Amino acid sequence: MINQRLQDQIGFIVEIDRLKRIFRQNVVIGTTEQENDAEHSWHMAVMAIILSEYSSVELNILKVLKMILVHDLVEIHAGDTFCYDEEGYRDKDEREQKSADRLFNLLPNDQASEIMSLWHEFEDMATPEAKFAASIDRLQPLLLNYNTNGHTWRKPGIMSDKVLKRNSVLEEPVPILWDLAQKIITDSIEKGYLKK
Amino acid sequence: MINQRLQDQIGFIVEIDRLKRIFRQNVVIGTTEQENDAEHSWHMAVMAIILSEYSSVELNILKVLKMILVHDLVEIHAGDTFCYDEEGYRDKDEREQKSADRLFNLLPNDQASEIMSLWHEFEDMATPEAKFAASIDRLQPLLLNYNTNGHTWRKPGIMSDKVLKRNSVLEEPVPILWDLAQKIITDSIEKGYLKK
Ligand SMILES: [Ca+2]
Repeated sequence: MINQRLQDQIGFIVEIDRLKRIFRQNVVIGTTEQENDAEHSWHMAVMAIILSEYSSVELNILKVLKMILVHDLVEIHAGDTFCYDEEGYRDKDEREQKSADRLFNLLPNDQASEIMSLWHEFEDMATPEAKFAASIDRLQPLLLNYNTNGHTWRKPGIMSDKVLKRNSVLEEPVPILWDLAQKIITDSIEKGYLKK
Repeated sequence: MINQRLQDQIGFIVEIDRLKRIFRQNVVIGTTEQENDAEHSWHMAVMAIILSEYSSVELNILKVLKMILVHDLVEIHAGDTFCYDEEGYRDKDEREQKSADRLFNLLPNDQASEIMSLWHEFEDMATPEAKFAASIDRLQPLLLNYNTNGHTWRKPGIMSDKVLKRNSVLEEPVPILWDLAQKIITDSIEKGYLKK
């Protein structure tokens, strides 16, 4: 017999396999396949390791990685809300909190609490780790869009001012990456990937 | 102008997007889609967070996570070698070392060395962190196969003794997970997912 604690942990691990089926707006470079949340989370985690040196303050990088690895789990039940979908954003918090309760509580209490608080910390974007993770969460799709001729930016209603505003989150936590994001946006307008 | 160091880092980050296109033998639960290495690496990283309490020795969990996140990058140029493919294993090391040189050296020297040494440490399976990461690397596909009616195990020539041997890596670093793996294998034989 496997003890209850381990059974619950394995149940959670099997359940989160579904993150591989939650699709995002952008595509994987060189393909027409939509990226999914598991791929996005992995890519962000490696980016955080490589780019943490640019943080304007000291970071607990272990906390950053944990936060990144779990930040999109709530989308398993709540779905991906496109970042420029104002309608979808209205009930996003409620949908995601319900999803978090349902999913994280598969785990033993202590671990459910840890993941819940990592997710809330990420969402609140108030600590250095959360601000850095949020910055990487902006930069990752920016790089993908830039390298796929502006794939997502070709949707109706997306203009450079919205993209710039969304990426301005980077300014305080990682100034050099904010410079980079602005250059990529300017260049994307010049290349015709993004409407001014 | 973006400085050379950051340019190199971004070049690496864009290049490793290709890990999302390296497919493995197993499928994502509930689908007929082959899992890819990026999804596998993300899933392993979350598993490591949840299951690290079962390690028989103290772990540097940050190192475990870094190792897991980069452990399959070499497959970008070398491809995935199916773990029961004896032919493919003959030149695996050489192919992967070439791939590592080509890929990691896109990074600034200090980071290239760090990733190279994390990858070698993982491959050598000698430190507690590498043994634990290797255990998770076995358990993750075991769970996926068990939850997809033994998808990969239905290939010709795969019998329970090979699967058991491959998973015996878990015995020393995480005894309770080795018990679990054995139970899953026994149950898989009973359910007809795996040939005895
Ligand atoms: Ca896919």
